[in-house]
Amino acid sequence: MLEELKASVLTANLELPKAGLVTLTWGNASGMDRETGLMVIKPSGVSYDAMTVDDMVVVDSEGQIVEGDRRPSTDTPTHLALYRGLPGIGGVVHTHSTWATAWAQARRPIPILGTTHADLCPGEVPVTDPLSPDDVRSGYEAATGHVIVSALAGRSPQEVPAVLVNGHGPFCWGSTPADAVMVAVTLESVAKMAWLTVTLNPAIDPLEVHVVARHFTRKHGAGAYYGQP
Amino acid sequence: MLEELKASVLTANLELPKAGLVTLTWGNASGMDRETGLMVIKPSGVSYDAMTVDDMVVVDSEGQIVEGDRRPSTDTPTHLALYRGLPGIGGVVHTHSTWATAWAQARRPIPILGTTHADLCPGEVPVTDPLSPDDVRSGYEAATGHVIVSALAGRSPQEVPAVLVNGHGPFCWGSTPADAVMVAVTLESVAKMAWLTVTLNPAIDPLEVHVVARHFTRKHGAGAYYGQP
Amino acid sequence: MLEELKASVLTANLELPKAGLVTLTWGNASGMDRETGLMVIKPSGVSYDAMTVDDMVVVDSEGQIVEGDRRPSTDTPTHLALYRGLPGIGGVVHTHSTWATAWAQARRPIPILGTTHADLCPGEVPVTDPLSPDDVRSGYEAATGHVIVSALAGRSPQEVPAVLVNGHGPFCWGSTPADAVMVAVTLESVAKMAWLTVTLNPAIDPLEVHVVARHFTRKHGAGAYYGQP
Amino acid sequence: MLEELKASVLTANLELPKAGLVTLTWGNASGMDRETGLMVIKPSGVSYDAMTVDDMVVVDSEGQIVEGDRRPSTDTPTHLALYRGLPGIGGVVHTHSTWATAWAQARRPIPILGTTHADLCPGEVPVTDPLSPDDVRSGYEAATGHVIVSALAGRSPQEVPAVLVNGHGPFCWGSTPADAVMVAVTLESVAKMAWLTVTLNPAIDPLEVHVVARHFTRKHGAGAYYGQP
Repeated sequence: MLEELKASVLTANLELPKAGLVTLTWGNASGMDRETGLMVIKPSGVSYDAMTVDDMVVVDSEGQIVEGDRRPSTDTPTHLALYRGLPGIGGVVHTHSTWATAWAQARRPIPILGTTHADLCPGEVPVTDPLSPDDVRSGYEAATGHVIVSALAGRSPQEVPAVLVNGHGPFCWGSTPADAVMVAVTLESVAKMAWLTVTLNPAIDPLEVHVVARHFTRKHGAGAYYGQP
Repeated sequence: MLEELKASVLTANLELPKAGLVTLTWGNASGMDRETGLMVIKPSGVSYDAMTVDDMVVVDSEGQIVEGDRRPSTDTPTHLALYRGLPGIGGVVHTHSTWATAWAQARRPIPILGTTHADLCPGEVPVTDPLSPDDVRSGYEAATGHVIVSALAGRSPQEVPAVLVNGHGPFCWGSTPADAVMVAVTLESVAKMAWLTVTLNPAIDPLEVHVVARHFTRKHGAGAYYGQP
Repeated sequence: MLEELKASVLTANLELPKAGLVTLTWGNASGMDRETGLMVIKPSGVSYDAMTVDDMVVVDSEGQIVEGDRRPSTDTPTHLALYRGLPGIGGVVHTHSTWATAWAQARRPIPILGTTHADLCPGEVPVTDPLSPDDVRSGYEAATGHVIVSALAGRSPQEVPAVLVNGHGPFCWGSTPADAVMVAVTLESVAKMAWLTVTLNPAIDPLEVHVVARHFTRKHGAGAYYGQP
Repeated sequence: MLEELKASVLTANLELPKAGLVTLTWGNASGMDRETGLMVIKPSGVSYDAMTVDDMVVVDSEGQIVEGDRRPSTDTPTHLALYRGLPGIGGVVHTHSTWATAWAQARRPIPILGTTHADLCPGEVPVTDPLSPDDVRSGYEAATGHVIVSALAGRSPQEVPAVLVNGHGPFCWGSTPADAVMVAVTLESVAKMAWLTVTLNPAIDPLEVHVVARHFTRKHGAGAYYGQP
């Protein structure tokens, strides 16, 4: 079942170590089939070297295994909470990529300092609130999903394609698993350049809003003119 | 038409990810045929993996497609403005390379702190003025070219082979597309070492002018004695 | 003798340069056979390229060679002191990996700033006391082992799976040589992200204890639910 | 002539880009035949990809070409000045490696902060005085050699195996070209870790002299016990 989605989720997972975003097994990608409400996700703690399409796990909206011999990623409830709270997204990627995680650990949003960032999204990348002891007790992974959704503060998942979980690392999304990977790759590059920029000039101002708007709309929305038609 | 130039533009584009200067599709190289006034440039948003010489686009001085099935890079008007404003150059490269972009985002020129830099050019690498709302409205990409040309302040494109666009990233040039790639590679290395230097010693002075002059003239101009005759 | 252990020690040693943790010959891995009390360790100053299972050296608890044609690592007395002082460990890895060594040279413990760290261990990674002139005179390498054991201050080697030797670099351990390599890989990543975090936010607080506890117990101990059963 | 030395100089040059110490053509290695006083050195500005043993240039103590069709490295007079001023050395390597060059550009000696450094040499890596206008006029490259020799202040080239040229980059040496490459590789690693250390703890003290002495004599001199006999 869902063979095409499983293949794209496998590809997305394999892209993560290739792009230098994942060490050991610290990352996962999933995809959502909106028609059936079923999610395909990476198995927990399995080496990327040996992973095949048959290791992908299909779960329902409660996280119950529908198909697959493996235990799904421990972050499964986080992914499910994101698909529930962020309408229209079809892929989610979580990593502990170095530079984005440094911002998450510093508990600072990534300011928008250049056009590379504006090509991704038109504002800063937010950090979630810290999780309370109750959040952790009541269901740590689902609570992580909820604080991410809250961090959007009503903005669309297209406008805010990634969030940094406080003291943890980035979650990214897009219309497909491949899109979510592209967000994760871009975010890591943006995070590194922002880190280098604020270290060089701590008083730097954000990019002017008229440049931000132009760059974002070059690549996104009805007026986009980047890429091939 | 222009088969040789198209091949060299393709090669220049493919060198960029190999040299670690480009992530995803964030970069482009072009070449100018000064006899016909035609420019060859990378297509917009096409993956480097699959790019062939037939994807190269030939445009005239107004940016109209003369040959090619692809939409040219969205930065086409910037490249054209550079060929118009910087006489004698034959190749242009644009990247979002990490360290040069950090300086562009910090809105600081790269000071000349060592002989690696002096081998490239005899002074700091300037940053453009920010673009005004009018600049963006009137034709964002062409305006980007104009602020770059203004940043040279009358110096020759040999003396200033690269400029950082404020809040954006570097544009580089040379007598051929391959030369422009060499400038881009050198600039990234110079940008990284300058960043590390000013972080280690914020009060550092520029390299002495007599050493700068000797290094620049070892590699450039009539008295050059670097390399093979 | 000990063919299986020798193979796993060889593999562990070869993983170190592959993971970018070792330059030239600056690192070593060992394994302990608790039944016989014999240790298998890398030979001293031998290139990783040419190393085979026959280069592994078997020594007894006094460091006397029991099998092998090579001189064992000069750090042999340190490894032996660790197996003696840290009951239950079966593998030890020592490197001069860049970011962990920077913390060791700065003589600062690595604070626990995120979940990547909490997945490894539930507290900061300690730094040893400096070695006194007497320590060095009386047997430098064994004394290094003793200050490492002291740095645990009674905590278990599972709770503190790595220590930074003051002005030197990290020693890591686990139940097997392969486990010790995983600790070394994780530590380097944690050290880099912690460095980037404190540079970005020098006043950052440690991760909340309830999140630390949850992450550590997700991966370790009786209630662990990470990975495959 | 000098076929063995030419082969080892070629190998040393090819090691430099492989070890990540050289970008484009910014580096060179040479070897000295003390019996004849002839030096073998890399040709100027030739790509590493295409370099063969026949490109190596043999020069006499005045820098006159004795064998070879290529122009020798522009740094030839610097290398000759080092072989003249540093008795017993048999190989010299010059690079613009990133982290060592950052210290050279910051005009700060590299302090001895850890055992990786003490394994290389027992004190800080000095920076030369800046070159005066007269130095540059009278023969820039030879003058560079003279300020390097002066920076040793009478210490032996074994005790000080590398010097940073002010505003330029490192020169390294050893008993053979291969030894000089090992010094260059070690220096770059030491320079990076020292940079990370002082950024993390600007008030850090040098490594205790009794640890420095023990580490240096583990690897160097009559009492060395590192490596295979």
